[in-house]
Amino acid sequence: MHTSSAMQACIDDCLRCYRICLDMASSHCLELGGEHAKPAHIQLMLACSEVCRSAAHLMLLGTPHHRHLCAECAEICEDCARDCERVGQMEDCVRACRDCAESCRKMAG
Amino acid sequence: MHTSSAMQACIDDCLRCYRICLDMASSHCLELGGEHAKPAHIQLMLACSEVCRSAAHLMLLGTPHHRHLCAECAEICEDCARDCERVGQMEDCVRACRDCAESCRKMAG
Amino acid sequence: MHTSSAMQACIDDCLRCYRICLDMASSHCLELGGEHAKPAHIQLMLACSEVCRSAAHLMLLGTPHHRHLCAECAEICEDCARDCERVGQMEDCVRACRDCAESCRKMAG
Amino acid sequence: MHTSSAMQACIDDCLRCYRICLDMASSHCLELGGEHAKPAHIQLMLACSEVCRSAAHLMLLGTPHHRHLCAECAEICEDCARDCERVGQMEDCVRACRDCAESCRKMAG
Repeated sequence: MHTSSAMQACIDDCLRCYRICLDMASSHCLELGGEHAKPAHIQLMLACSEVCRSAAHLMLLGTPHHRHLCAECAEICEDCARDCERVGQMEDCVRACRDCAESCRKMAG
Repeated sequence: MHTSSAMQACIDDCLRCYRICLDMASSHCLELGGEHAKPAHIQLMLACSEVCRSAAHLMLLGTPHHRHLCAECAEICEDCARDCERVGQMEDCVRACRDCAESCRKMAG
Repeated sequence: MHTSSAMQACIDDCLRCYRICLDMASSHCLELGGEHAKPAHIQLMLACSEVCRSAAHLMLLGTPHHRHLCAECAEICEDCARDCERVGQMEDCVRACRDCAESCRKMAG
Repeated sequence: MHTSSAMQACIDDCLRCYRICLDMASSHCLELGGEHAKPAHIQLMLACSEVCRSAAHLMLLGTPHHRHLCAECAEICEDCARDCERVGQMEDCVRACRDCAESCRKMAG
């Protein structure tokens, strides 16, 4: 492993946010229906999950290009956290998105 | 399909660049060796391939968040095109990266 | 490119099926609601999309391990085609899944 | 979370194997050169990494189709472990592949 411990922590946070967003979008949100299953909310959850997955991938590849993707990942995680607060009953997802956004901002530095 | 024809063209360009970067990195470059197989070159090719794949994914999801990822994709494609020109014998990849960068800049608009 | 024309055709079919499944699941199906937006249908569409994406990836990498993933991709595409026929108004997706299943069976050989 | 603790453990093992294979292929192996940087070895490492990533994705989606992909993931992890033993200096990767293969066989059950 060539990566610093700060980067390892950011990869952890990205992969945790990826897992929670994908899991909750495809089960919890679709089962609850209503605001939780509106296309815009599911699309944002799935997009957040994809960008977290891809930011982790670039850090693992060991290329300095991860910086820009981490900056973008922090933005989409904040948007996803806000939308999850709006629909409610998404506490785990809000927390994972906020933690990931904070880690990614440090990496984007 | 909800997507405009400009977006369909950008998805096409992203997936073509993804294919060519991944194919050339894992076969052509590793077989040639030398500058082509240096970690920094392979890492950049694989990172470019991943970001193109992910930008296409966000456009397909139908979320407005694709804009930011397309802006980032244009940057990494330009960097990848330059590095491919430097090592040489990478004409297909240079062209796919430049085409994708141009499409992505329009989407990022 | 080291890949045969049959493999190039299979990569094309996998990426087309990936695009259509992801696009229709996240927009068309969620907007229609009812049977189209039930968790099991959306999960199957997203799983089919992911396996097609990954089968294309293994073929692009140039490893003989694509065979096993292509066999699995053919199975999930057939299941997805059947479920899309059941819910109706999914003709494009049914066709893309069947075409991809046929290409993947040839590759799995 | 709808997933059992056995499935959570398998997702953990798949994502750990994904991380280690991708990290070692793109840095450690390319830097060492020789047998470590031969196309067939790098391709197998990247393919193993992709299949682990995709098996985790299907488990997170909550679809029963993860079974077939887990069976395939166990196979490619065993092949990757054997090839890593052959080239040497890949102990972390051998262990992650073997652990992931064992978890995936249980899920494929």
